[in-house]
Amino acid sequence: MKKLSVTLLIALSCLSAFAQDFSDKITLVIHGGAGTITRANMSPEREKAYRDAMNTALEKGYEVLKKGGTSVQAVEAAIHVMEDSPLFNAGKGAVFTNEGKNELDAAIMEGKTLKAGAVAGVTTIRNPISAAIAVMDQSVHVMMAGKGAEQFAKEKGLEIVDPSYFYTEARYKALQRAKEQEKTELDHNGKEENGGKEEKEVKKGPKTGYHSVEDLIFTEGKKFGTVGCVALDKFGNLAAGTSTGGMTNKRYGRIGDAPIIGAGTYANNATCAVSATGHGEYFIRSVVAHDISALMEYKGLSLADASNEVVMKKLVERGGEGGIIAIDRNGNVAMPFNSEGMYRGYIKSDGKREILIYKD
Amino acid sequence: MKKLSVTLLIALSCLSAFAQDFSDKITLVIHGGAGTITRANMSPEREKAYRDAMNTALEKGYEVLKKGGTSVQAVEAAIHVMEDSPLFNAGKGAVFTNEGKNELDAAIMEGKTLKAGAVAGVTTIRNPISAAIAVMDQSVHVMMAGKGAEQFAKEKGLEIVDPSYFYTEARYKALQRAKEQEKTELDHNGKEENGGKEEKEVKKGPKTGYHSVEDLIFTEGKKFGTVGCVALDKFGNLAAGTSTGGMTNKRYGRIGDAPIIGAGTYANNATCAVSATGHGEYFIRSVVAHDISALMEYKGLSLADASNEVVMKKLVERGGEGGIIAIDRNGNVAMPFNSEGMYRGYIKSDGKREILIYKD
Repeated sequence: MKKLSVTLLIALSCLSAFAQDFSDKITLVIHGGAGTITRANMSPEREKAYRDAMNTALEKGYEVLKKGGTSVQAVEAAIHVMEDSPLFNAGKGAVFTNEGKNELDAAIMEGKTLKAGAVAGVTTIRNPISAAIAVMDQSVHVMMAGKGAEQFAKEKGLEIVDPSYFYTEARYKALQRAKEQEKTELDHNGKEENGGKEEKEVKKGPKTGYHSVEDLIFTEGKKFGTVGCVALDKFGNLAAGTSTGGMTNKRYGRIGDAPIIGAGTYANNATCAVSATGHGEYFIRSVVAHDISALMEYKGLSLADASNEVVMKKLVERGGEGGIIAIDRNGNVAMPFNSEGMYRGYIKSDGKREILIYKD
Repeated sequence: MKKLSVTLLIALSCLSAFAQDFSDKITLVIHGGAGTITRANMSPEREKAYRDAMNTALEKGYEVLKKGGTSVQAVEAAIHVMEDSPLFNAGKGAVFTNEGKNELDAAIMEGKTLKAGAVAGVTTIRNPISAAIAVMDQSVHVMMAGKGAEQFAKEKGLEIVDPSYFYTEARYKALQRAKEQEKTELDHNGKEENGGKEEKEVKKGPKTGYHSVEDLIFTEGKKFGTVGCVALDKFGNLAAGTSTGGMTNKRYGRIGDAPIIGAGTYANNATCAVSATGHGEYFIRSVVAHDISALMEYKGLSLADASNEVVMKKLVERGGEGGIIAIDRNGNVAMPFNSEGMYRGYIKSDGKREILIYKD
């Protein structure tokens, strides 16, 4: 009787292991920020630069998944591409704070274990997403901030760079314009409360053609630059990661939604993995990523319906602009956004991909 | 016809205002931390000191509600008492980081508007809960950290103190013991990974009697000291606030669950207000406060059932020790915890109160 039970157990385990092969479902989704991104204010050169960078990010993440890597490793690989590209507001190319610094936030979460890691306000870690992963895997903590987080990353052997590494001329100019704009508004309104003003549309001078990558960085209009990635690996495990430089001209050590587990980043094998980009304050208050998960878990909504409910209804009612990318364990993908555009794309197990920027 | 409509509108408004009077439901709940708090390791003097402080906190908060103040004002008043008392791990009496500093976190959330504010890693703000409220009410941000948050608090006229204000001998000794313990463990295990170790039970010397308030501070055993308050005001609005010094011997700018909206602090008039205390990392991963709200909103659970589901089931399965206090719009109160004890209490509209410490 005991022998039979053991045999049955082994048979069931094999069956379960077989049923657990998600190789044909591996999927990776990325975003590169949302905001006032329209065809009208995009040049063909700029669009091509963004599409190329997103394509590389998708490929790097897909490669990891194809080779049998984990969803966390795939998310890291894809986000590295966007952190290292000056086009996106994360890592190199991050926006400047009011004090003229680049303060970076990032988070990772693993759907199988609900383990998570995050760093906030770091200025010397080349790839903040890797620091978030180190916090998750190599510390007893979930979130570390500032100099402490940098010290930890250094001890774990992550690449440390001089803060000047993150400098890009385009982002620096965007800060100057934001400050000018703020000054003008102060003069006009006599208001004192201006911390964290968004970048505003500024009058552009005559176009001089695009000569350098700096010229390609899209800094006009209201834009919530943040990069993110969600993935499903062949083990059926979900992961979500987000990395950002926050808001241009931000002050007072502001932390946005990206490194907040449940707000900008969340993953749970029982439901979905989510990475957000948008007006962070609204995303924190609405606990966006966890709310999508909860709607699936407790109300039985599909990934698409849950995502739409939060992004296209709740956030719109509350004035929260932005979008999210999400994936479930069946490889379903959702990428809703309520802003004018969102850099986004996905790649499926057969290598088929789609890269999108505008609303339609 | 127009006149009739206007009359009808006014009548409806009055009716609605009448129906909206929650004066007989005003309620305030507090916690002062959870952990290894048992009758066996508590002296009568120590217990009395904690009960007295909690009673004062309840009374201060209740006074605000009785006078028609808002739930946010009541939460602030109650938390001030505990922040100013050296007995609790928040404000004066906060535990020490590995570097011998007191780094404080706090958060507030308003159930009517879903507005929220938080500060993390501040070392000079006497009452971090007031800084969180200032962030909510007087900035466009939700979360500020470190020196930036301190600068903001200073600009808003909050009381700034020298970091030495937060020093208490008992907490400093607790740090020394934690470091000794860590050293011993390192020697025994050869482990390198010790960041954020909890305070461990240490052998106590012969009792010498209690001569000062320092002697009363309860620092033995595993304890997750954090203070929190949730309240329902006569307008029917909920609010939740949390304030903490984090974990003894914490490193690397660790941020716990207290200032994370959705994890340690959450309020929504549609469901409940929650403040948590416990092993923060587990509370962040489980997005504890928002999960309780989601179970009520999407699954129709009562406050008690939703709170128990998360604290006594999910958290227990995941190894997350601690507890929460919660309140709904009917003035129902829940205070579940899965640790040995939790300092907790509530006061109802008629002034009746209960203050509890142990499991039973």
